[in-house]
Amino acid sequence: MRLTKFTDNSLRVIIYVSANGDRKVNISEIADACVIPRNHLTKVIHTMATKGLITTTRGKGGGVSMARPPDQLKVGEIIRAMEGVEEIINCETPKCPMARLCELRSILHKGQNAFFAAMDEYTVADLINQPKIFSKPPVAKMQKAR
Amino acid sequence: MRLTKFTDNSLRVIIYVSANGDRKVNISEIADACVIPRNHLTKVIHTMATKGLITTTRGKGGGVSMARPPDQLKVGEIIRAMEGVEEIINCETPKCPMARLCELRSILHKGQNAFFAAMDEYTVADLINQPKIFSKPPVAKMQKAR
Repeated sequence: MRLTKFTDNSLRVIIYVSANGDRKVNISEIADACVIPRNHLTKVIHTMATKGLITTTRGKGGGVSMARPPDQLKVGEIIRAMEGVEEIINCETPKCPMARLCELRSILHKGQNAFFAAMDEYTVADLINQPKIFSKPPVAKMQKAR
Repeated sequence: MRLTKFTDNSLRVIIYVSANGDRKVNISEIADACVIPRNHLTKVIHTMATKGLITTTRGKGGGVSMARPPDQLKVGEIIRAMEGVEEIINCETPKCPMARLCELRSILHKGQNAFFAAMDEYTVADLINQPKIFSKPPVAKMQKAR
């Protein structure tokens, strides 16, 4: 059971951005700190902004920041937004002849709902146990922290 | 959030095998009925047998049957056996510099546990709502049932 790489990376991004508080972080910095290839990161950031998870500001002094305080953004909300609530199995490709008679999909939905309910008990504020370690410059601090 | 194709196909197999009751079904029949390529199916069947989910018997009159009655095999048990309880995200490749400071992995484990707890409330017997439709010959019956 895995989240997509896209969602996985969005979680790295939100952790890094939230840990930087009010400071706007630029994309190159996020790419370095989160170890995400820049072209992939651009798509992640775009989707996160579209979904209202982060705010992006162009120009000098611009960058990425949280759209809401970390304690007001649920982890479940991020995963739902980035991952979608797609089917957990694929009954269509190739089409399963048993699909019409099978309760598996609805049973798996219950499991998926249980997963999201558990994730809704946590916010971004719960994700980091030492936020101050992420202060700028991020890469140097990261290496020092190892 | 997706299960692997390997797990997905194992669920198709268990549904088909269980729906056939005491009759042993052969691999070609399962491949047709479940729309699984034969070379992939062989690996699925082998793992399922190794994990004690099904029994395989060689020779004339042989085939695949349930290792336990359908109402004694939990859906969660199948998914755990086939999918493993691997990490739901990948903090290692590429290695996330924030991993040491991050609570995400443990929080996601709680979600994963909630998912499996929900799946353990159902057995294979709960998966099919009209088992009799799967009587032999499976492919012809399937088409008729559409």
